[in-house]
Amino acid sequence: MEKDKKLVEQITPMDEDFAQWYTDIIKKAELADYSSVRGCMIIRPYAYAMWENIQGDLDRRFKETGHENVYMPMFIPEGLLQKEKDHVEGFAPEVAWVTQGGNEELTERLCVRPTSETLFCEHYAKTVQSYNDLPKLYNQWCSVVRWEKTTRPFLRTTEFLWNEGHTVHATQEESEEETIRMLNVYADHVEQMLAIPVIRGEKTEKERFAGAIGTYTIEALMHDGKALQAATSHNFGTNFAEAFNMQYTDKNGKLQYVHQTSWGITTRLIGAIIMVHGDDSGLKLPPRIAPIQVVIVPIAQHKEGVLEKAAELKARISKIARVKVDDSDKMPGWKFAEYEMKGVPIRLEVGPKDIEKNQVVLVRRDNGEKISVSMDEIETKIPSLLDDIHNAMFEAAKRVREQKTSSAVNMEEFKDIVENKTGFVKAMWCGDRACEDKIKEETGATSRCIPFKQEKISDTCVCCGKKTDKMVYWGRAY
Amino acid sequence: MEKDKKLVEQITPMDEDFAQWYTDIIKKAELADYSSVRGCMIIRPYAYAMWENIQGDLDRRFKETGHENVYMPMFIPEGLLQKEKDHVEGFAPEVAWVTQGGNEELTERLCVRPTSETLFCEHYAKTVQSYNDLPKLYNQWCSVVRWEKTTRPFLRTTEFLWNEGHTVHATQEESEEETIRMLNVYADHVEQMLAIPVIRGEKTEKERFAGAIGTYTIEALMHDGKALQAATSHNFGTNFAEAFNMQYTDKNGKLQYVHQTSWGITTRLIGAIIMVHGDDSGLKLPPRIAPIQVVIVPIAQHKEGVLEKAAELKARISKIARVKVDDSDKMPGWKFAEYEMKGVPIRLEVGPKDIEKNQVVLVRRDNGEKISVSMDEIETKIPSLLDDIHNAMFEAAKRVREQKTSSAVNMEEFKDIVENKTGFVKAMWCGDRACEDKIKEETGATSRCIPFKQEKISDTCVCCGKKTDKMVYWGRAY
Repeated sequence: MEKDKKLVEQITPMDEDFAQWYTDIIKKAELADYSSVRGCMIIRPYAYAMWENIQGDLDRRFKETGHENVYMPMFIPEGLLQKEKDHVEGFAPEVAWVTQGGNEELTERLCVRPTSETLFCEHYAKTVQSYNDLPKLYNQWCSVVRWEKTTRPFLRTTEFLWNEGHTVHATQEESEEETIRMLNVYADHVEQMLAIPVIRGEKTEKERFAGAIGTYTIEALMHDGKALQAATSHNFGTNFAEAFNMQYTDKNGKLQYVHQTSWGITTRLIGAIIMVHGDDSGLKLPPRIAPIQVVIVPIAQHKEGVLEKAAELKARISKIARVKVDDSDKMPGWKFAEYEMKGVPIRLEVGPKDIEKNQVVLVRRDNGEKISVSMDEIETKIPSLLDDIHNAMFEAAKRVREQKTSSAVNMEEFKDIVENKTGFVKAMWCGDRACEDKIKEETGATSRCIPFKQEKISDTCVCCGKKTDKMVYWGRAY
Repeated sequence: MEKDKKLVEQITPMDEDFAQWYTDIIKKAELADYSSVRGCMIIRPYAYAMWENIQGDLDRRFKETGHENVYMPMFIPEGLLQKEKDHVEGFAPEVAWVTQGGNEELTERLCVRPTSETLFCEHYAKTVQSYNDLPKLYNQWCSVVRWEKTTRPFLRTTEFLWNEGHTVHATQEESEEETIRMLNVYADHVEQMLAIPVIRGEKTEKERFAGAIGTYTIEALMHDGKALQAATSHNFGTNFAEAFNMQYTDKNGKLQYVHQTSWGITTRLIGAIIMVHGDDSGLKLPPRIAPIQVVIVPIAQHKEGVLEKAAELKARISKIARVKVDDSDKMPGWKFAEYEMKGVPIRLEVGPKDIEKNQVVLVRRDNGEKISVSMDEIETKIPSLLDDIHNAMFEAAKRVREQKTSSAVNMEEFKDIVENKTGFVKAMWCGDRACEDKIKEETGATSRCIPFKQEKISDTCVCCGKKTDKMVYWGRAY
């Protein structure tokens, strides 16, 4: 089995150089490729199929919670972007500008959307007149552009794919409820489909989205101890409504401003999947979004009946799972390594001896366990094994997060954790921007969120010592 | 029933002003809205749901024929666009240029993709090495931009949504087979899902896609007698392969150029649905892509048991069709008009008298027919009625097309048809560009396609009188 090692050996071990390990997996598992457009990536079929599964599940959840999909233009005229002061300050420095259309120089520049609040506002201002028109619960799937200086595939690219929900409501209470509802939709998706445990909480004022009165987030922890913001949900209150004059007539005939939210999740989730679950043999895909859930590798496939049996098994399994047979003329060991690299949750081996015994061998990607299963039982065993793998991956990720979550009561401890232990730091905070800035300056860690589930680490702010009961998750982040 | 008339009266009758009728429907049925971005439209939920149904069916057909989805960057560097001579000549005059990213002036302009051949070529040149890597069958769903001077919602907009398939093959034979296969996939979709009959054929050299050696098309006829190109499929031969150096090693170790195709269908299909099926009461949606297939309108809904029965029927029907109950406090007549405008294929009326008789009334949008059906039978009646409606709509569209298809043997006849009868003109053509240009100049009609199913109209070119056996469909077109 020289050959199957070769593929694996080309990956840099995770502990040696995590960034290089990440890049190696993206290349070897054929997830993305560079293009000649600076900072933009090509999403290859295997990764795009993951995105389709993510999108399919989220879209179902969005529709079940009453949302409708729409499509807004990809361009925003400069004047429209400038209508909300905080928003334009936040985004203008990082947008791409179209200045020429065909052979004509444009009189007003168009930015390629970094996010579409302004377009939704303009549309809602026109279409919402009375309380009968509320709420409006719209979502769109599209790509957006942010002119990034340094980029990494999936994690930070000039263009990325995402969903952006934009809703308007009659009251502040309703918009707040929606903001939290959609955060929970994201959290459930990430935990139940991607097997990634998340911390749910609110961003500090400093880390809020440009124009929001409240930003909620789900934060995940990667294998190298760095945090990743997996999704955000924003409550804008009436900030945009006032700037865009989005008003409705209430039941008493009085003009009121609408209350607005937005929420989004991006292709960086694929980066999170790699960095939460992967190992030195490659990807480990959460079964529920894996493009291939079961790969059938025929053993001694030149022997009579083997390929026929593999095809027969494929036909049966295709009714309950996403399945592929690899009957190419590569050596089985080579195939094993290839599908380990691609993170396929279950490998099914079937050879002449198995056929004799009316059994197959199932090998789990997550823990390497081999199980012999009667051929008569595959329809029940495979779905339950996929669930087991999901649960085991979720628990494993949770254990890593727990190992890499520490509490600090003073700056000494805080710095020591960030530098030596890595991971999340739980620490009390007084609420002052000055302390938040100082923590970042001295440790490199940013506030990740004020978790909904508060804990008491101490009585005083980890930075200034002022009395407080607010606990915050901190960490270095992607 | 004054109220239900009001909604209808606001539409311009089709025969009075077809263009205004089209615009009125788009507004009244809430399909699209204008934005402050010149030439770009907002696709509203009802139209977007149609697009999702179109996309879902096509995506399934693409995958069944072995294609995989990917995502390419939305930007193309100017140098890359210029690599294939014909291609850049065709597209450069109508692209939007990004010249600034963040605060920096770009050293090389980026165009917003008008189509992505060049990016796919660059990627294939890197990833295809040997005959083992072929064919590559990729598709992407995205939006593209073409800087149009005059625009109309769905039919011609600066930005539009589409699919673009891009494939590479070992031989010319295989790429030709793929080009025709995908044309047929489109034709089947348009006929079987949208109930729009199409003519399948090849474009003349003049009407070919920039860079192609052969372009195939499906052409549909609108209610006003103008043609609409519903989809195209192109064979590039080795044109791009030579420009981008896309080579592979064949079985004999020899370097060969790949043979390439591309094919696309766009949101203009929604325009076609409006203009093929609609009438003076509004849209008529083909049942298989209608967002709402059955709308339940409760009659005398304040009476005991009516709303409960409506809800019960909805629960039952939702298992077999896309169904909605309108229990708002509008008058039934008003609701009738509203769902006629929205083109919902079946209206189900249920009131106290119906409940007494254990029946419901089904009203067909396509021909106005009313049918009383026992409540026990709705699970069988509704699906078969939806099929009947589909078939009837297809046949009605075909009849209109046949009525508006004429043959011309000389230019007199040709001009007379275009000016007075409108519709398709079948006429013989010698194959010379000069005659094609002259026909356009004198009649305004362009060659729509050289149909696969040839007919003999006469022995000689309709324009120059030269002997020929090539028959062409001509017409004014959107």
